[in-house]
Amino acid sequence: MLTLHHLWLSPVCRAVRILLGEKDLECELVVEHTWERRPEFLALNPACEVPVLVTDGGDAVCGSTICEYVDEVHRTPALLAGDALARAETRRLVAWFDDKFKAEVTDYLVGEKVDKRLSGSGHPDSESIRAGKHNVHYHLDYIGYLFERRNWLAGDDFSLADIAAAAHISCVDYLGDVPWDDHPGARDWYARIKSRPSFRPILADHIPGLPPPRHYADLDF
Amino acid sequence: MLTLHHLWLSPVCRAVRILLGEKDLECELVVEHTWERRPEFLALNPACEVPVLVTDGGDAVCGSTICEYVDEVHRTPALLAGDALARAETRRLVAWFDDKFKAEVTDYLVGEKVDKRLSGSGHPDSESIRAGKHNVHYHLDYIGYLFERRNWLAGDDFSLADIAAAAHISCVDYLGDVPWDDHPGARDWYARIKSRPSFRPILADHIPGLPPPRHYADLDF
Repeated sequence: MLTLHHLWLSPVCRAVRILLGEKDLECELVVEHTWERRPEFLALNPACEVPVLVTDGGDAVCGSTICEYVDEVHRTPALLAGDALARAETRRLVAWFDDKFKAEVTDYLVGEKVDKRLSGSGHPDSESIRAGKHNVHYHLDYIGYLFERRNWLAGDDFSLADIAAAAHISCVDYLGDVPWDDHPGARDWYARIKSRPSFRPILADHIPGLPPPRHYADLDF
Repeated sequence: MLTLHHLWLSPVCRAVRILLGEKDLECELVVEHTWERRPEFLALNPACEVPVLVTDGGDAVCGSTICEYVDEVHRTPALLAGDALARAETRRLVAWFDDKFKAEVTDYLVGEKVDKRLSGSGHPDSESIRAGKHNVHYHLDYIGYLFERRNWLAGDDFSLADIAAAAHISCVDYLGDVPWDDHPGARDWYARIKSRPSFRPILADHIPGLPPPRHYADLDF
């Protein structure tokens, strides 16, 4: 059995969970309070960050590398497919969300509203929250732009790019901070994501003391 | 002929240049002032960041995805090799340097001392520079720790992990901010890097108005 050390609103952790669902792989989830710096966890990942996937053989695979690792070991369905150029386009979009969206949206909203509270590292900064709410529009436009031209974000097929984007969006949506009404294109894409069986556990997340808004799990939102 | 849009002290740009050298691929370098947001460059990469590699066929490959793209298209020598677990370890270390070292060292030193000046976005913050100089010790220790146990950073063979680490270290070394005397293990590893033919163009870099310290290009430093 695989074990995933994770946090509920960590986008890369969610991406791994969605990916494992797509591959029909079972996994035990362990919530890891990274800020407590448990020695046993540091031995698994010296960066002391989630996610960490522990394989059946006891090997630890860390962070954003987990997705490509799982996709290489469990080939069906392939979520990083096509020729080198198509793969580069998928990876470009994964990096777009994991780097750019993270810095411009997720860190400002999830980081300020949730991570700071969980780790006891201060109060939310209202200017940062304003910046996140401002920036999210630009990224939703980009999702809409891509989805108007392609079947999925990176091309014809559902891929790691859709998973990365959905993982970030779902964290922000859990806080009620996605302005869906202004972005029908991005909403259409996310509605298709929400209806995938691999996404059901994400929609069922319910963090004690921090309930999601009513529309979060609703397929018709 | 390949074309690389780059900046001299961007670590990922340097990594691509080293990689192309390892593969014996020629490439035309174009300095891109990303902060000017040229429409032609935005069309290549909507994130408006370097590096961007333009292929013979005119396709643009962006950012950190370039290395795996080039390694997939030009297989010899393979720089992301081994089984899925070995590849995950290489990718973990690439992410260590491109994310963690970047945030804790490169952004504080190159970002404050060089990028701000180049882009006219303010004065260096002395507290950030102090933080970068403090943090670099921890990463040099980690390089020394790995190099004591392995032939190269990720295992037996020279890989994308060594390239990513060397690209970041070389930028900081260009500013004279690597405390080599305190870290003989990391120094031994970097001496091996410096002697590789693929690294010669990096050591020959000479930015107008910002000359490197004398030891920068010296193989015996």
